[in-house]
Amino acid sequence: MGILHRGRQSFVFDQHPAILASSAIAGKKEQEGPLKAYFDETNTDTKWGQSSWEKAESKMQELALETAKKKAGIHNQDLDALFAGDLLNQCISSSFAIRDSGVPFLGLYGACSTMAEGLCLAGMAVNGGYARIAAAVSSSHFASAERQYRYPLGYGGQRTPTAQWTVTGAGCILLGRQEQGPFLNAATVGAVVDYGIKDANNMGAAMAPAAYETLRAHFDDLQLSPSDYDLIVTGDLGSVGKEIILDLFRRDGVGIGGVYNDCGVMIFDLEKQDVHAGGSGCGCGSVVLCGYLLRQMERKKLHNVLFCGTGALMSPLSTQQGESIPAVCHAVSIGTERR
Amino acid sequence: MGILHRGRQSFVFDQHPAILASSAIAGKKEQEGPLKAYFDETNTDTKWGQSSWEKAESKMQELALETAKKKAGIHNQDLDALFAGDLLNQCISSSFAIRDSGVPFLGLYGACSTMAEGLCLAGMAVNGGYARIAAAVSSSHFASAERQYRYPLGYGGQRTPTAQWTVTGAGCILLGRQEQGPFLNAATVGAVVDYGIKDANNMGAAMAPAAYETLRAHFDDLQLSPSDYDLIVTGDLGSVGKEIILDLFRRDGVGIGGVYNDCGVMIFDLEKQDVHAGGSGCGCGSVVLCGYLLRQMERKKLHNVLFCGTGALMSPLSTQQGESIPAVCHAVSIGTERR
Repeated sequence: MGILHRGRQSFVFDQHPAILASSAIAGKKEQEGPLKAYFDETNTDTKWGQSSWEKAESKMQELALETAKKKAGIHNQDLDALFAGDLLNQCISSSFAIRDSGVPFLGLYGACSTMAEGLCLAGMAVNGGYARIAAAVSSSHFASAERQYRYPLGYGGQRTPTAQWTVTGAGCILLGRQEQGPFLNAATVGAVVDYGIKDANNMGAAMAPAAYETLRAHFDDLQLSPSDYDLIVTGDLGSVGKEIILDLFRRDGVGIGGVYNDCGVMIFDLEKQDVHAGGSGCGCGSVVLCGYLLRQMERKKLHNVLFCGTGALMSPLSTQQGESIPAVCHAVSIGTERR
Repeated sequence: MGILHRGRQSFVFDQHPAILASSAIAGKKEQEGPLKAYFDETNTDTKWGQSSWEKAESKMQELALETAKKKAGIHNQDLDALFAGDLLNQCISSSFAIRDSGVPFLGLYGACSTMAEGLCLAGMAVNGGYARIAAAVSSSHFASAERQYRYPLGYGGQRTPTAQWTVTGAGCILLGRQEQGPFLNAATVGAVVDYGIKDANNMGAAMAPAAYETLRAHFDDLQLSPSDYDLIVTGDLGSVGKEIILDLFRRDGVGIGGVYNDCGVMIFDLEKQDVHAGGSGCGCGSVVLCGYLLRQMERKKLHNVLFCGTGALMSPLSTQQGESIPAVCHAVSIGTERR
């Protein structure tokens, strides 16, 4: 057995699991944004032909998996493990999406960090020979999230300037062993970080410290620096959280500004689309990674990307009970070459 | 890299991660049941000195982790990964329990199968060298589950004969590398199985088919039979689900009756404790495994145990939307010797 852990939080994928295929399914507002050319399927019907938004979200996960399998030329029976999660209570989008597939299923709850968590674990499964092909899937839906976390849409609640817009979308990545990349090269698992933020309309501020801590651990554990990446990207900090990250690193005297961005800022036109601080949700990082970023890697416009999924781990009930917002961030290093 | 998968759903732990320590924390009703001698800590206060049942559940997870660490003689900084989950929306018991620990955290949602899922993944992490020591933790609380899934306790709703009683308890297992067992020898990851059961008061019937399918896959993939175990134990099928499992195997002509039992049946005195079909919840399988069963293995009264965590993956909302109950079961083979 190799010793793959580096420091305490990080490990290397010495067998370099390859991304066999990825897919991004997105909603209407995402289709109107700057990344519209990179989604495999979009729909102007918020219910995707289903009877509820929750079922629509499940449908998007199904479509994401179907699309990725088609691209990779594989079938359900080729999939040894599927890691999936979402934001809905009891993660029903995920478990209902694959209930007829017969695919071995490992449910995750990492809030909006789920795609990164799924990649860490699916990567571990393929790297270690526990699975031949493994999938990571996650989703969110604006309407199902709003009514669960905030207000019924019909209530027409006002949104604060720091509020973010939950992305309607689902992403899927299939990992296996092949000579062609992109490859997973390393990962850093985050600890839960809670700086005491209690404003449930300011997720960016709650999650930014977790991203900062995980990035620091990643650089320390693996003896890397921001310049080893041409893109370091967080999942859904939005414009507020993005500024906080830049500020925290500035204090350390570490310049990441040149290579850092956030999927929540990238997915929408923040000036024109009335999304306040930007996109959020499991679907946000997922569709930006599975749609836009991996296409850029295929075209060799990006070579080394550190994808940092960020998740706020509170619930409406914990907020009602006066609790602050714990957050987590997992980072996965993806490269066009093995390193 | 070794090829560890066997068939599609199963894999072997070729490095045999060892159980360094385990702990079981339980509530008042559990303390009055037949396994009372096997809990590390119990409390007659349903709130465990906290201001809510949800915080009490989180407190139990903290205590479970603290107790297991103390037994193993390790500290938070020795823990490279913690896999945890629970039944509460957004799994707040788990993320709040470890928010001050600094331990790398991977959140799971497997409903009541969480301890088995955690063991599969923590086992993979230690077996593959991704983590030196990893923990699996899960919990449930009768009162927090009742008000989330069913009715406020004060409402005094009548319970049907097939209803089960959510166990108040938390369990923790620490895995690492050492010469002394018990060891994890193999695991089988379940697919989601949905036979169309819609009665949310009959979880045993909804979950039994998932347990049956996973057990069949386990025997097929690993070329084993029930007689290779001295105990095959499901997490929380209760008396109704237990009968269904026995019936399904009887139809196949496979006798498992002599070695099969269910934690939901074992944890309470079904005649005297007014729990109808028995115990349920993430805590049920967890405390029976981490308390009673692992003590029996230490004393060499049990040698090979197949622990099958069973989970019902619906939510109150999916039930309201007319959906049936998808279920999953993961099995972990634990032995006093490596095999």
